[in-house]
Amino acid sequence: MAKVTPRIQAGFMELLPAQQILFNKMMKTISETFEEFGYAPLDTPLVENAEILFAQIGDDTKKEIYRFSKGDDDLGLRFDLTVPLARYVAMYGNSLTFPFRRYQIGKAYRGERPQKGRFREFYQADIDIVGSGSLSLVNDAEIPAVINRVFEKLQLGDFVIRMSNRKILSGLMEEYGVGEKKDEVLRVVDKLEKVGWETAKQMLIDLEIKVGEAEKILEFVKTSGSNAKILEILNKMEIKSELFKMGVSELAEVVEKTIKFGVNEKNLQIDLAIARGLSYYTGTVYETKLLDERVKGSVCGGGRYDDLAESFSNQSFPGVGVSIGLTRLFSQLLDVGVIKATRATPAKVLVIPMEANMSFALEVAGELRELGVPTELYTEDDKFKKKLMYANKIGVPYVAIIGEDEVAKKKVSLKNMTTGKQELLEVKMVAEKI
Amino acid sequence: MAKVTPRIQAGFMELLPAQQILFNKMMKTISETFEEFGYAPLDTPLVENAEILFAQIGDDTKKEIYRFSKGDDDLGLRFDLTVPLARYVAMYGNSLTFPFRRYQIGKAYRGERPQKGRFREFYQADIDIVGSGSLSLVNDAEIPAVINRVFEKLQLGDFVIRMSNRKILSGLMEEYGVGEKKDEVLRVVDKLEKVGWETAKQMLIDLEIKVGEAEKILEFVKTSGSNAKILEILNKMEIKSELFKMGVSELAEVVEKTIKFGVNEKNLQIDLAIARGLSYYTGTVYETKLLDERVKGSVCGGGRYDDLAESFSNQSFPGVGVSIGLTRLFSQLLDVGVIKATRATPAKVLVIPMEANMSFALEVAGELRELGVPTELYTEDDKFKKKLMYANKIGVPYVAIIGEDEVAKKKVSLKNMTTGKQELLEVKMVAEKI
Repeated sequence: MAKVTPRIQAGFMELLPAQQILFNKMMKTISETFEEFGYAPLDTPLVENAEILFAQIGDDTKKEIYRFSKGDDDLGLRFDLTVPLARYVAMYGNSLTFPFRRYQIGKAYRGERPQKGRFREFYQADIDIVGSGSLSLVNDAEIPAVINRVFEKLQLGDFVIRMSNRKILSGLMEEYGVGEKKDEVLRVVDKLEKVGWETAKQMLIDLEIKVGEAEKILEFVKTSGSNAKILEILNKMEIKSELFKMGVSELAEVVEKTIKFGVNEKNLQIDLAIARGLSYYTGTVYETKLLDERVKGSVCGGGRYDDLAESFSNQSFPGVGVSIGLTRLFSQLLDVGVIKATRATPAKVLVIPMEANMSFALEVAGELRELGVPTELYTEDDKFKKKLMYANKIGVPYVAIIGEDEVAKKKVSLKNMTTGKQELLEVKMVAEKI
Repeated sequence: MAKVTPRIQAGFMELLPAQQILFNKMMKTISETFEEFGYAPLDTPLVENAEILFAQIGDDTKKEIYRFSKGDDDLGLRFDLTVPLARYVAMYGNSLTFPFRRYQIGKAYRGERPQKGRFREFYQADIDIVGSGSLSLVNDAEIPAVINRVFEKLQLGDFVIRMSNRKILSGLMEEYGVGEKKDEVLRVVDKLEKVGWETAKQMLIDLEIKVGEAEKILEFVKTSGSNAKILEILNKMEIKSELFKMGVSELAEVVEKTIKFGVNEKNLQIDLAIARGLSYYTGTVYETKLLDERVKGSVCGGGRYDDLAESFSNQSFPGVGVSIGLTRLFSQLLDVGVIKATRATPAKVLVIPMEANMSFALEVAGELRELGVPTELYTEDDKFKKKLMYANKIGVPYVAIIGEDEVAKKKVSLKNMTTGKQELLEVKMVAEKI
């Protein structure tokens, strides 16, 4: 029979069991932390009507959508978790209770040209707090508090949540009389770190911003110092724009509240260069970076938006949220060795029967599971050496050997696979030991 | 601005938060049980090359596939989790350790005509044990042991795992000299419960089975009694077919071992009418039914197969596995009221600050989370009544009210939302109480 070559598409992450166990552990830590703050889980279809997906995106993203038809339906795979949330809130608004805190960890799709570090199928882990009509600024402080706790628990080393408020730069543009160009300017600022000062300056000049003002903008977003220092500088600036003043006042309040939420000051840094490319954001914006220099780029980003579902509803749903790019983060961590896959089994012990009649071995395995120990049974009639080799390969920490002697004594020979130490124990003792 | 009507495709299950929490709880129970037996998690792309999907399916299923192209690639959404497993095992065989125990809980897609109880996007929860070259019969007994534990833990009432071995009926066909028709006969037997005796008999006659033999086949598969009784009847039958004898002997061994795995005899019933439609299965076959009559049909099914990856590899990978149709099961349980959605939040307590300065409330929320209590904070500046109404609507079991008094005393007024009882407590006591 002719064989089909087994393969997957480039840009689709697929893991071996030991890596998958690590990835799932990371997802579990994240979802548990989200739930710790009262965010409800959400799960929406991977497939949306194309009209929904296309409602509020640019042409570049449109091209990347996996689009298809089935019968008369024009469909596509979702490219993020925000559009489905907007559609969901507009659709079920009357059955939801606001403020609505939801998290969603799921796959999204962008058919980009595959390249190192870019994925076509990728997990995002999103939280959002959505209000109906209004939503207080406390929520802008809760989001970084959740992210802070997530990255503390993930134990990936030091990290910093960089924060700004888009009203500040937008207000500055108003002050310079180029308020209508604020979205373009914010996009340039967003790229500053990547393209460098000179290129960013030229990009601003190309937007017909005067040279002097372009330099002022770039100097402004590079303002550095402690959070208190930057706020002091902002407060002292003689800017008349109400938008600017509101931005500064919001930023000050959000920083203060974030610290009150228990976030260590060293993990939170005002950074006026944080702009987020999307015109979607209207206030607070965040980006989080790991300080480990091997991990490139922002690992999560988000912010405040005035109206989540404007394409789908006449009701106003302001919100604030953040998204962790899980697949990209995990793939980098694995590549550079920050995390290491070790065990290819969730079992803590492998029961190895040495006799064809497995009665006692089955009993032991059942008892261990009852006692809460994840237990795998070696089922094949192989030589002892092969059985131990299997245990070594899957990285199980203990094996419980059950031969004639053990059956007679109703005990188990427990071998610690790290130390090699072996002892004869009763089943209850095995559970305690592990 | 013209609005796009928010909507999803028919046949796609989408849940409100309280239902989603229930669904996730069910998924968690299932995945934890799979891990308790040492099955490693697997996650494969939703999108596969069409050639992979088409490698071993019939024309009916082909038509149901969501198929699309991106650039030069001919792609489709997976329609089950078995084809991806076959592709995975063929692709990474050299990096895996056999027997390979994996579970996968994920979505699959079939673009059927939508109708009540049929889903186009649905979760399956699969376990399989895959061997390289060979796989012992003990594994056929482990699978129902896992399923038994899953349904015990799900607490959906009594259930029965019905078991047979396809070699038995196939052997009987050999005996009747119509061995080449065994797959068609097995498909008729598989439909017996649904179509009834007379129709099934006619279907067999249409296959050019003699009337007398058609009746014998149907009488045979209706053999009832205890497992011991049925095995006794099978052993006493004077059938020369070696295949038949092997089937009976395998069935006897699998039943015996399944009981030794700790499965209660009342949950395990030999049923010779269990045939499974797919020609894919070659030995043991299972189906599980809930005894609650409101839940229709089989909730999970599976069996033994000789060669998992025959379309993708020259290596032989025999295996045994089972699949739970999670979306269909959940949707039925919810519809008939076996399970009920109550809480729309994972939080156990809602902290309600009564003052604009939330300092103490934020402190309390943080402390409760540190103590392991999922805690939501009410962030909006609303009237007390509205805050309590919110608590009622999301179904949170406790609220912690923090007003002037509480701030002064550094305590919390904890209200039990079920009993209405309220007491002034220290934060540590709140954590203990909840």
